[in-house]
Amino acid sequence: MSHEQQISTGLILDAWNLQIKRANNLFNYLSAEQLQSEIAPDRNRGVYLLGHLTAVHDTMLPLLNLNERLYPLLDNIFIENPDKSFAMMPSTHDLKFYWNQVNETLAAKFTRLEPSDWLKKHNEVNAEDFKKEPHRNRLNVLINRTNHLSYHLGQLTLLKNKS
Amino acid sequence: MSHEQQISTGLILDAWNLQIKRANNLFNYLSAEQLQSEIAPDRNRGVYLLGHLTAVHDTMLPLLNLNERLYPLLDNIFIENPDKSFAMMPSTHDLKFYWNQVNETLAAKFTRLEPSDWLKKHNEVNAEDFKKEPHRNRLNVLINRTNHLSYHLGQLTLLKNKS
Repeated sequence: MSHEQQISTGLILDAWNLQIKRANNLFNYLSAEQLQSEIAPDRNRGVYLLGHLTAVHDTMLPLLNLNERLYPLLDNIFIENPDKSFAMMPSTHDLKFYWNQVNETLAAKFTRLEPSDWLKKHNEVNAEDFKKEPHRNRLNVLINRTNHLSYHLGQLTLLKNKS
Repeated sequence: MSHEQQISTGLILDAWNLQIKRANNLFNYLSAEQLQSEIAPDRNRGVYLLGHLTAVHDTMLPLLNLNERLYPLLDNIFIENPDKSFAMMPSTHDLKFYWNQVNETLAAKFTRLEPSDWLKKHNEVNAEDFKKEPHRNRLNVLINRTNHLSYHLGQLTLLKNKS
């Protein structure tokens, strides 16, 4: 594996870590009331996006072949159904705990991966297809999930200064 | 330059192109009235974010050592000052034209870069510092600007279904 490949992988990991740090800062900054409010009229609540991001990051564990799911029950509430579909959902306190557990598990697993490991196939492509489509690798998943996180951070930041 | 490095650079370019395509689709979909409205109460208008993204992408031309600025006058309105600072600003029609010109210029220049070119220093770091900090390269700029675009796309999408 080349030095150049090491640099590129490092940049992509740095971008992921930066967005995770921004998200952590924002979730710590926002009050429980702010997280309960909508990012814009009739749009998702902050707490739904917190659960959504947690569930999506949790799916990365098996997708990147790193670990089993930690909180598979989140998918029904936060991926498969829109906000306000359920009268009962996990508390903000619990969701913040899940969010940290998932991202810390990812971070611990990431430290054990070499640059070459990032170019291996992810778990939703079979070996035959991967030969023809080598871009369907772990690094691609990480790039796309980083942009997904940035997308929702742009929305969550709108909760600042809301009473 | 290794085959692996080629794959990684391709993934990062693909992510940029995907977000540009999503932005183009959204800017084409939104009406002039929707673009004039705020993404959330007392927040930036769509048209401000269109100008902001255009100006930021325009700064990439010299930063990546590809071209002179096309529209340097946008910075005062769309980077250095917040929305609604000026009574007069370019029309939405003109901003869409600038947006396309800037991104098409970037795309044309990108096709001439080899994977190894992307690891060269960007223009805001000097050669001496770059030896110590090889991550301050063009590829890093592209990754960060892609996330910046995703961040604002998450906001612009809130303009859909607004009258």
